[in-house]
Amino acid sequence: MSYNLVTDDVLQQLQAIVGTDGVSTAVSELNLHAADMSSHPPHLGEVVVWPTTAAQVAGVLRLANEQRIPVTPWGVGSSLEGNPIPLYGGIVLSTGRMQAIVAVHVDDFQVTVQPGIGYKDLNKKLAVYGLFFPPDPGANATIGGMLANNAAGIRTVKYGASKDNVLRMEVALADGRLIHVGSRSIKQSSGYDLLHLFVGSEGTLGVITQATLKLTPIPALMSAVAASFADVETAVAAVVAIKGTGLDLAALDFIDASTAAMLAQENGVDLPAQPTLLMEFHATHAETIQLGLDMVREICDEMGATRVYATADPTERQRIWHARHQTYETKLRLNPGISWMPMDVAVPISAYPALVAYAEQEMQAQDVSGFLIGHAGDGNMHFTLAYQDEDAHRRVKAVNAAVICKAVDLGGTATGEHGVGIGKAPLMPYEHGAALDVMRQIKQTLDPNGILNPGKIFA
Amino acid sequence: MSYNLVTDDVLQQLQAIVGTDGVSTAVSELNLHAADMSSHPPHLGEVVVWPTTAAQVAGVLRLANEQRIPVTPWGVGSSLEGNPIPLYGGIVLSTGRMQAIVAVHVDDFQVTVQPGIGYKDLNKKLAVYGLFFPPDPGANATIGGMLANNAAGIRTVKYGASKDNVLRMEVALADGRLIHVGSRSIKQSSGYDLLHLFVGSEGTLGVITQATLKLTPIPALMSAVAASFADVETAVAAVVAIKGTGLDLAALDFIDASTAAMLAQENGVDLPAQPTLLMEFHATHAETIQLGLDMVREICDEMGATRVYATADPTERQRIWHARHQTYETKLRLNPGISWMPMDVAVPISAYPALVAYAEQEMQAQDVSGFLIGHAGDGNMHFTLAYQDEDAHRRVKAVNAAVICKAVDLGGTATGEHGVGIGKAPLMPYEHGAALDVMRQIKQTLDPNGILNPGKIFA
Repeated sequence: MSYNLVTDDVLQQLQAIVGTDGVSTAVSELNLHAADMSSHPPHLGEVVVWPTTAAQVAGVLRLANEQRIPVTPWGVGSSLEGNPIPLYGGIVLSTGRMQAIVAVHVDDFQVTVQPGIGYKDLNKKLAVYGLFFPPDPGANATIGGMLANNAAGIRTVKYGASKDNVLRMEVALADGRLIHVGSRSIKQSSGYDLLHLFVGSEGTLGVITQATLKLTPIPALMSAVAASFADVETAVAAVVAIKGTGLDLAALDFIDASTAAMLAQENGVDLPAQPTLLMEFHATHAETIQLGLDMVREICDEMGATRVYATADPTERQRIWHARHQTYETKLRLNPGISWMPMDVAVPISAYPALVAYAEQEMQAQDVSGFLIGHAGDGNMHFTLAYQDEDAHRRVKAVNAAVICKAVDLGGTATGEHGVGIGKAPLMPYEHGAALDVMRQIKQTLDPNGILNPGKIFA
Repeated sequence: MSYNLVTDDVLQQLQAIVGTDGVSTAVSELNLHAADMSSHPPHLGEVVVWPTTAAQVAGVLRLANEQRIPVTPWGVGSSLEGNPIPLYGGIVLSTGRMQAIVAVHVDDFQVTVQPGIGYKDLNKKLAVYGLFFPPDPGANATIGGMLANNAAGIRTVKYGASKDNVLRMEVALADGRLIHVGSRSIKQSSGYDLLHLFVGSEGTLGVITQATLKLTPIPALMSAVAASFADVETAVAAVVAIKGTGLDLAALDFIDASTAAMLAQENGVDLPAQPTLLMEFHATHAETIQLGLDMVREICDEMGATRVYATADPTERQRIWHARHQTYETKLRLNPGISWMPMDVAVPISAYPALVAYAEQEMQAQDVSGFLIGHAGDGNMHFTLAYQDEDAHRRVKAVNAAVICKAVDLGGTATGEHGVGIGKAPLMPYEHGAALDVMRQIKQTLDPNGILNPGKIFA
């Protein structure tokens, strides 16, 4: 693909579409939209635009398509695989001025929103209805970004990923068409499932301009459990045992000994410095919670847990999960000068012990250190690897590639929730084989000029 | 599209691919593969083939694509919208000899199967592991057919539709390529979601040759509730109230007074001849079941139920649901000479009363009778309309079209679980608008010669 630069004439046309105050070429703005939370190097776009309506988004895309200018959609830049970096320059399309709640469908447990609203901000506003949008990637990601990356988080084990919590979307296509996909009915078998084709396509097939989300009643009761184990292997084996009961946990996370120590020291969470499973239960009745807690305690004791700590106290529970959510940021803050590569492989749960053992072996072989945290209940593990220089970066990348291939060999995937972005694009042929050709065919069909978020998903 | 006939040369090539005993042009076989359970008229294919492997399926498609011969995939013909009728003749590709269980992944709650196995047969074989595949459309549909139509049923309100219970598939494309889509990891954000593009595509984009399904532990305890109401409106209002509690019901079905009377008379189910909600709870503990039952009883009483009957007795529970599953067949048997058109609209739950009221009004206006049953908890309603002659058939079709448009206007869909098939294809532009063009583009990309199940989804 070859692209054209953003000329003065194009800038004027952009201003005509989104208004004068919706277009900026200021270096400060370009810098603010050049990098996400990953270790991928920043790259500057040529212009940032802030549309406020779906029609404006469609207008920007139509113009860019005619002029062969790349368009990279931008939420808040909280992604972890370079997904919103404008690798080929061009237009950065920010959804920052599309934060409206369009409608709350209380009786249907649904909300319709513009894509730029943060999921935490949304949940604050929904609390008055006793409802919430369950996927929680941690950072205050936008709904548009979460859907584009099919983001997930600690509660996905019970409530599903972003793709499981969206019913209908409005999408602007590369050629400026606006389409509606999905249905507000929770069941639909009507033609091709375009909804899920656009979810997780990382802005390479279209730009989400509106979404109707499935909401869940805020649980009446929640409790947290922290179970500590002498070693990683035992903790991971306990995950498989707990999953095997069919217990409906709302979270089942793993943190390694160093992370447990950090949470104890930095956040005042009462945890020994041991590999630990963090769990959560949601229920409408105290009896149900207690039955689940008893069952988990029994299994953890049987598996040789060194300590099982349970709390139904809301403050304590929130302290644990807030600390868990801040793990990555805390590591960054405590280790100035060190860079981190967060991995994101996922496997069938039975393969989890083998994956962890392999990763530890590869880290040792490459003399790489890091920490392990993950959504163990989903088989999703974030090995997070440290590096300080180019040589270490090379070795970290080698571990990453080896572990991804191993995850695929074990029946899993290169990415459970961060998306492909820049970093995992080279490994897509290994994971998808001939199916990657079909993805390319669809990309070519819907975006023949390749203007949408180029350089992502496909290497 | 123009197609070629199946010549002797093509027959010989088919025999070379699937073996001599895997090809038949006998009129008896063509007749057995000419119609499904719908009222759409039968149409004969020219040849039936029974491949046994994915490679053979791919070989048949490659040949058909080269020769421009239509291929219509066939499970057991239990669908309800003409989905597997070989409208343009050509090859009927039966999965009847692909019924193997390839692997049971017990620790992962997964099973990998060939597409021709019936879901009831599968569940019988899985019982020994304490696991089951939850979607249950009623008839012993094949897994391949269920996935191709995104079939659902009475337990979808808790466990989801077919699309929610599949993780990975092998698919043969029109040009003979074999691809793998999805992942055995329960989380995946890796490239485009081709899995859900093929699920529900009704054999128009590819033929599913293998699938890994998500299984669920067989619930330790189940109970059934039948709540009777004086009129349809009150019953339907109770559905909205029950849904509003957030209670995790495993089934929430509606049957009208005539159906309740039929179940009482034909199946010995203890029900008054009144509009009735049939519910089911699944749980690991008796306490949890009782809490749910109490809550439902309270709501139904408040809403003016005339009788609320609850049972945890397995025989009685099974009698109720078996009878419910047999409703359509029983109606057919008891009313010889009458034809039925089963509708399948679905709406957001808050719109359910409006939909029912509108349908009853349209039925009255067109002087059409029928019965109402549906998966009320999903907002999915099967108005089933009776006709005996061509004029009545025309009026029934008019009601169908009007109710579908109303469902779409109310934020719903033309089909909750039966698929588009032949009958709903003309209404796809109304439901999908410009998104239908995108579906056509994808169809054109993956099946440029239009050989796969022509005449379905697109009018």
